[in-house]
Amino acid sequence: MEDTVTDRDSAPQTAPDTAPEAAPETLPETPPEAASGAGFAPRTDVQAIERGDRFAPRFDAAGLMPAVVQDAATGQVLMLAYMNAEAVRRTLATGEAHYFSRSRNALWRKGERSGHVQKLVAMRTDCDQDTVLLTVEQTGPGACHVGYRSCFYRRLAGDPQAPGLVTEGAPAYDPDRIYAKEAP
Amino acid sequence: MEDTVTDRDSAPQTAPDTAPEAAPETLPETPPEAASGAGFAPRTDVQAIERGDRFAPRFDAAGLMPAVVQDAATGQVLMLAYMNAEAVRRTLATGEAHYFSRSRNALWRKGERSGHVQKLVAMRTDCDQDTVLLTVEQTGPGACHVGYRSCFYRRLAGDPQAPGLVTEGAPAYDPDRIYAKEAP
Repeated sequence: MEDTVTDRDSAPQTAPDTAPEAAPETLPETPPEAASGAGFAPRTDVQAIERGDRFAPRFDAAGLMPAVVQDAATGQVLMLAYMNAEAVRRTLATGEAHYFSRSRNALWRKGERSGHVQKLVAMRTDCDQDTVLLTVEQTGPGACHVGYRSCFYRRLAGDPQAPGLVTEGAPAYDPDRIYAKEAP
Repeated sequence: MEDTVTDRDSAPQTAPDTAPEAAPETLPETPPEAASGAGFAPRTDVQAIERGDRFAPRFDAAGLMPAVVQDAATGQVLMLAYMNAEAVRRTLATGEAHYFSRSRNALWRKGERSGHVQKLVAMRTDCDQDTVLLTVEQTGPGACHVGYRSCFYRRLAGDPQAPGLVTEGAPAYDPDRIYAKEAP
């Protein structure tokens, strides 16, 4: 436990592998006001969180959790966004992906202006319920505002100390045409 | 822009879709001491970050960024973890996934004790370079400490206001046998 580099495997009782935040003392971190967590289950104990059949999400201090978004048809990871409690609820209720913009401090429905909405196929959560995975049907040519199908269009390469980026593939659409279409 | 629910599509200049954190005023957020970013490119402008060929990661105030981990063979999303600058460098240098444990405040090599190491196939970053996607060869039966192949073994179902969780599939291994093997 004193090593600089250890696996959480070395301390299964307190910090099991893949559950860095599941330590019992940190479980009740979701601030009720930020989560607006009415309806979501309380985070009472590790057993219920890891094995239970109730959604007991852990939001961070800002009331958010990361959402990995995966293309249902291809398995491609399209993007990573953030959700608050309301975004989770609206996504489940409407069947269209909603996220929370940290820069604009507002809820948004993906594709509202571009038309590239994401239809929800399934939403899953992970062992410690501090992340969700959305499987979606991506409508339109792509999920990324830069014009690519996926936001992950560049691969790290070269010197591990100073990696370069290699762009893979071609853009799926011209974002200037999509985003400028309502401009005067 | 005043709507409660808007798409970032509605403000492409300031908050483009899928790039909630790419607003110019927030670009230089990576604290140099937290990132230990020697070798990584500076985050100078949106064009370089979104289109450039240098890795210019944005770490949060704690020096971390989320890492989505995907199985190279199946496309399954295995887990979400966090990396600091050193975890990125060690992963690239060794070819084995390293992460940073927020609960233990320490770097760890995935699978160090369980043996379920993740061999790096490719590492990608997203448009605003605040997330990485690792494609890995998952050795051993699974990535999740609970015993499943993937941490995302439960699907949300039922009332959007109070979702339940449905466990999908069966565990891939018995974690008690893996994690107890060094116990007295």
